[in-house]
Amino acid sequence: MDTASRLREQHIETPSWAYGNSGTRFKVFAQQGVPRDPYEKLADAAQVHAFTGVAPTVALHIPWDKVDDYAHLAAHARDHGVAIGAINSNVFQDDDYKLGSVTHPDKAVRRKATDHLLECVEIMDATGSDTLKLWFSDGINYPGQDDLRARQDRLAESLKEVYDRLGDGQRFLLEYKLFEPAFYATDVPDWGTAYAHCLKLGPKAQVVVDTGHHAPGTNIEFIVAFLLREGKLGGFDFNSRFYADDDLMVGAADPFQLFRIMVEVIGGGGYGPHVAFMLDQCHNIEPKIPGQIRSVMNVQEATAKALLLDRHALATAQSEGDVLGANAVLMDAYNTDVRPMLASLRESMGLDPDPMGAYARSGYFEKICADRVGGAQAGWGA
Amino acid sequence: MDTASRLREQHIETPSWAYGNSGTRFKVFAQQGVPRDPYEKLADAAQVHAFTGVAPTVALHIPWDKVDDYAHLAAHARDHGVAIGAINSNVFQDDDYKLGSVTHPDKAVRRKATDHLLECVEIMDATGSDTLKLWFSDGINYPGQDDLRARQDRLAESLKEVYDRLGDGQRFLLEYKLFEPAFYATDVPDWGTAYAHCLKLGPKAQVVVDTGHHAPGTNIEFIVAFLLREGKLGGFDFNSRFYADDDLMVGAADPFQLFRIMVEVIGGGGYGPHVAFMLDQCHNIEPKIPGQIRSVMNVQEATAKALLLDRHALATAQSEGDVLGANAVLMDAYNTDVRPMLASLRESMGLDPDPMGAYARSGYFEKICADRVGGAQAGWGA
Amino acid sequence: MDTASRLREQHIETPSWAYGNSGTRFKVFAQQGVPRDPYEKLADAAQVHAFTGVAPTVALHIPWDKVDDYAHLAAHARDHGVAIGAINSNVFQDDDYKLGSVTHPDKAVRRKATDHLLECVEIMDATGSDTLKLWFSDGINYPGQDDLRARQDRLAESLKEVYDRLGDGQRFLLEYKLFEPAFYATDVPDWGTAYAHCLKLGPKAQVVVDTGHHAPGTNIEFIVAFLLREGKLGGFDFNSRFYADDDLMVGAADPFQLFRIMVEVIGGGGYGPHVAFMLDQCHNIEPKIPGQIRSVMNVQEATAKALLLDRHALATAQSEGDVLGANAVLMDAYNTDVRPMLASLRESMGLDPDPMGAYARSGYFEKICADRVGGAQAGWGA
Amino acid sequence: MDTASRLREQHIETPSWAYGNSGTRFKVFAQQGVPRDPYEKLADAAQVHAFTGVAPTVALHIPWDKVDDYAHLAAHARDHGVAIGAINSNVFQDDDYKLGSVTHPDKAVRRKATDHLLECVEIMDATGSDTLKLWFSDGINYPGQDDLRARQDRLAESLKEVYDRLGDGQRFLLEYKLFEPAFYATDVPDWGTAYAHCLKLGPKAQVVVDTGHHAPGTNIEFIVAFLLREGKLGGFDFNSRFYADDDLMVGAADPFQLFRIMVEVIGGGGYGPHVAFMLDQCHNIEPKIPGQIRSVMNVQEATAKALLLDRHALATAQSEGDVLGANAVLMDAYNTDVRPMLASLRESMGLDPDPMGAYARSGYFEKICADRVGGAQAGWGA
Repeated sequence: MDTASRLREQHIETPSWAYGNSGTRFKVFAQQGVPRDPYEKLADAAQVHAFTGVAPTVALHIPWDKVDDYAHLAAHARDHGVAIGAINSNVFQDDDYKLGSVTHPDKAVRRKATDHLLECVEIMDATGSDTLKLWFSDGINYPGQDDLRARQDRLAESLKEVYDRLGDGQRFLLEYKLFEPAFYATDVPDWGTAYAHCLKLGPKAQVVVDTGHHAPGTNIEFIVAFLLREGKLGGFDFNSRFYADDDLMVGAADPFQLFRIMVEVIGGGGYGPHVAFMLDQCHNIEPKIPGQIRSVMNVQEATAKALLLDRHALATAQSEGDVLGANAVLMDAYNTDVRPMLASLRESMGLDPDPMGAYARSGYFEKICADRVGGAQAGWGA
Repeated sequence: MDTASRLREQHIETPSWAYGNSGTRFKVFAQQGVPRDPYEKLADAAQVHAFTGVAPTVALHIPWDKVDDYAHLAAHARDHGVAIGAINSNVFQDDDYKLGSVTHPDKAVRRKATDHLLECVEIMDATGSDTLKLWFSDGINYPGQDDLRARQDRLAESLKEVYDRLGDGQRFLLEYKLFEPAFYATDVPDWGTAYAHCLKLGPKAQVVVDTGHHAPGTNIEFIVAFLLREGKLGGFDFNSRFYADDDLMVGAADPFQLFRIMVEVIGGGGYGPHVAFMLDQCHNIEPKIPGQIRSVMNVQEATAKALLLDRHALATAQSEGDVLGANAVLMDAYNTDVRPMLASLRESMGLDPDPMGAYARSGYFEKICADRVGGAQAGWGA
Repeated sequence: MDTASRLREQHIETPSWAYGNSGTRFKVFAQQGVPRDPYEKLADAAQVHAFTGVAPTVALHIPWDKVDDYAHLAAHARDHGVAIGAINSNVFQDDDYKLGSVTHPDKAVRRKATDHLLECVEIMDATGSDTLKLWFSDGINYPGQDDLRARQDRLAESLKEVYDRLGDGQRFLLEYKLFEPAFYATDVPDWGTAYAHCLKLGPKAQVVVDTGHHAPGTNIEFIVAFLLREGKLGGFDFNSRFYADDDLMVGAADPFQLFRIMVEVIGGGGYGPHVAFMLDQCHNIEPKIPGQIRSVMNVQEATAKALLLDRHALATAQSEGDVLGANAVLMDAYNTDVRPMLASLRESMGLDPDPMGAYARSGYFEKICADRVGGAQAGWGA
Repeated sequence: MDTASRLREQHIETPSWAYGNSGTRFKVFAQQGVPRDPYEKLADAAQVHAFTGVAPTVALHIPWDKVDDYAHLAAHARDHGVAIGAINSNVFQDDDYKLGSVTHPDKAVRRKATDHLLECVEIMDATGSDTLKLWFSDGINYPGQDDLRARQDRLAESLKEVYDRLGDGQRFLLEYKLFEPAFYATDVPDWGTAYAHCLKLGPKAQVVVDTGHHAPGTNIEFIVAFLLREGKLGGFDFNSRFYADDDLMVGAADPFQLFRIMVEVIGGGGYGPHVAFMLDQCHNIEPKIPGQIRSVMNVQEATAKALLLDRHALATAQSEGDVLGANAVLMDAYNTDVRPMLASLRESMGLDPDPMGAYARSGYFEKICADRVGGAQAGWGA
């Protein structure tokens, strides 16, 4: 298939929570026009798809996106031209979870947390979602606070129960994160931990790579290549960071890294529906919808460059031990300006070649600012 | 002076905000018995002093600790056996400060921020505080978002105005921080930036070292030694971290580092009232008052070890180029168990040798849990 | 068993290369009295055991310690009161290995490298060593230089061949390292990669944790606990670091971390002959033999503290969710001064209570300085 | 001046040591055709200039490039179309410097080190070089090994003596580095330290930024902007790194960072002869001359993009607080493919548009491989 066709079939999922307010522990700055319920979030997400053409699904976060009738919510999504994607569980914002959820020393808390995860599978059934994303904030702040190994036992027990509940065609993605909100030890701190758990559980358990969740200096594309080789890469939570889990727009901090990741994804057979491309970002100071549009475009540009890579020339230089030559082949792809190609692609899809401009001119933002007055804005914890 | 006398005169300031609720961006877990106003915070801080004997002052945070009558608040503190310490400004939680405070591109916002700083000097006048602590969350999240150099110009202008407003016997301490809440560039990211600004302003401007605000691998005790040599170390915000600005209890993550810092403080002539020892921590999951007591004890223990260091033997080994010998002298001090010495010291001061146990037995916690029902608990942003 | 008995049975292996010269890329500073062949290295290692009583074996490095008659070398070791421990392979100092060894794009180089590893197994047979340590410097310096995934395939192939050659009672330990000498991607960069390969190979393949080989901020004791839970922790290469792979004396940079590691080792059932405690350090500026003695003592002290931990009290506090209480139990053990206990232990073993002083007084250093004149000093690459 | 003219006047200095062998502490891989003396190094450097047109000077390293007659060496350079640039001192490879050079506890060693620096100024006089680059490997490996503050005093004393020796039109650049070869504390670890020393000395002392010498996460362009604002940025040692001081080709690891640095250089008035652009790299596995050519091209490309930045549009977006808009203006410049523009520029200068290809076709490499047989290859320490 040619590059344009492959780009046309790209599928980047945006997260419902990116449309609500977010911030740091210091302050959440409220923005105008922010959605007040899951329905409005889906409407905003539909805008991103309308202008980019490659963002047809939206991830939900439970309980932030809890509704009485998920079939109704799914129909609402369809009416706006999008579909519901992954279901994200949340076992970190209830008072009971102060010392953990599925790894909590108290069995009753673990039961509650696992029940929430099982409820998320029910929502998958109701919405038709095939993917459950599991992120645990579980961990400890002080050495000695709890037993590292016992927490692994508890984690394994809960994961097993959830795994066994998954239906045909359903899977879960286990997310890892070095730190935050736990500040001494996190129960799933790295890909190795997530991988080991998933391997024991079976094929419906896979690892999701959040690009902001690593120790400084970690080579993320190596992890991507390794997990693809093992058949255990389930998807990405895309964002970017300079320091910790900054949750900036993907590609904003290190576009070359994003390109290298896409090179491994494509080279490793991960470019397709089995590896989910999801955004997971916090637009703390920039407007939400344009922030998502820009992020989708950043992923597209990195993908386009990676697709342009002359892999035959690369393999030849590599096999000859030509260090500079092989690096040059890679850099040639990276240094290419793919924006004209993507503009053409959009036109061929019946879209405006300039999604950011088109959205700005659409009047949508002015409309939601006018309409969405009163009510509580959605946000983390809301 | 002997070690016991020097330890007896130690002065560790606790922060009013440590007694309120705090958390991460993911969740603030409310605790029982948390203060609902500055008066109750001072009462709690007084407990820490009552049981340790070395925490006689309390830092305020404006506007979190804003009251109508500061003289009244100061008297309330005195009634509880403590005094008001440093005044901490806050120019990061107003909606206007989304893109900065004193470095904001909009002059009106800068004016507002500087006015707040000047107001803090007025509160110093009213409370008798001699120290203003300046921390700016200012910075940018994305490359290009604002002009790095122009922001320095704006920062310098505001600092100058505040500096000129300081009275005799007043000073300000400029704090630096690598990142958070800004995620690409912070306007005062490192000690060099703070130092350069303070140097230009004059002797009333000094640098404060927050032990959690550095890049990974930074040698903090080197900075301490260097600033002391330059006469520019104004004090510490003590806490500890494994990853970012975790704000754990001081000494909890790396007690050896805390010891090394104290070695430089004492060796560099920084052990005295001109270098403020302040705690700046977030007790997200542990109880507040015991968390502060434990932190004060950790600083004491590191100080005691540093005071025990045989500096004569150290200097001899150093001058002889005896790498292992010099290191061994230092480690001998560190490896000493100073807890019995500190227990004796407390007894000689009329205190219980076991502050944690004594506080637990005092019934204070049960009392505040019973009394402080209703009202809004204090916390970041409250 | 009581603490003293458990300490008495501790077994810390020193590496033959620690007795030779080492340095940085900038300079190797030669020291007086350095061994000139494997026999002299073993004699030096025997001194460490003579004064500490817990360092009865010595790791060899092939080809640095290549001799014609390994049975003779083993007998020489026994004559000095020590035995030969792990065999360390070296596939990084031959000109052929510029672009890799077992992962090199050229099959002939891979063959040569694998043959070297097989030769090391032969040396195990000849010396009676039961452990082969595999560290690969393999990796690439530039993005695109070689194919990340193809290198994994090559690595797996070579490991399989070596694994199949292992005899009964023999095992290999696969070492991981984040970077250096490769500066973009290392072929075994983290514990997850080593674990995944070992898991596929079988029970004779285990992971070895070099305490200096992690990204900044990595929680090493978590990895230790996790690998023990999986039965895949084969041993340690102990050393310490502030920045990169500094190879300083173990316990010198962060004694608290070393203690936490020992807590997990003991708690996870890893304190015994199946988990090898090996030193891997570079005494660039300090004298070699005292550097090793000090390092052995540092491991002993951390072990003693970890053995003193009141695990029952700890478990109780943990189960009650008592964050400060549980941390305090841990810190009580850490803050104990175990040096008197270790001095007594040494006396009960017929040793001088002060190994450093006893070695200094022994005249051994003066003797080797006088005797070892002429010939080429051993060192990295020699 | 237009972009092409500004690019044409760019001046990138290559280092003599980049043409010799280099490596890691594990191994130096010798390459074919490597120079055997300073004359051959200059000849190789002249090739880089011949094919790029913007590398007219070559930095020397003393004593690696020590010759009897510097006037003769300078004439040799001129004959090859290049000139001698900065003089780099070396006080780290003599056995006396094991514990430091200008900060050594022994006065005699300090004297020797300072004398070497003064000798370098004499070589400046002899060669007409106007810049002395000072890098000190000085530091300590273990806490307590030496007194941090006393070492600053010694450093200041030596720097003062060298500063006073500088003639009219001469300056020195003080380099900082976080770590390596010292592994606990380096005597000039960061820009703040270098800045403070230079500020006291006067206008002939400036800071040089080596792009590989920072802690992880450090925002280098901030430092550049700050030093330019203070008039204290003297130049760059360009290279790139993923982990520590990897000394990879500049722009290879993070081309976006290099672009951001150039944006600050140009915006801060640092694009001109007063801020030296120097390469400082180690071509451990790639060929030397092409490695330098590629590096020069990487700097050119980053400069070209930075020159293309629409600073008017940027300032407008910044002043409006348009986060996404301002970032987009910056990214537009970065995403531009400037290679065609640079090819045209080269043709207008009478050069081949493809320097890498032209060099490869020139036969120079084959010639030096044939000619340079016998003799000792130049390298670090040779």
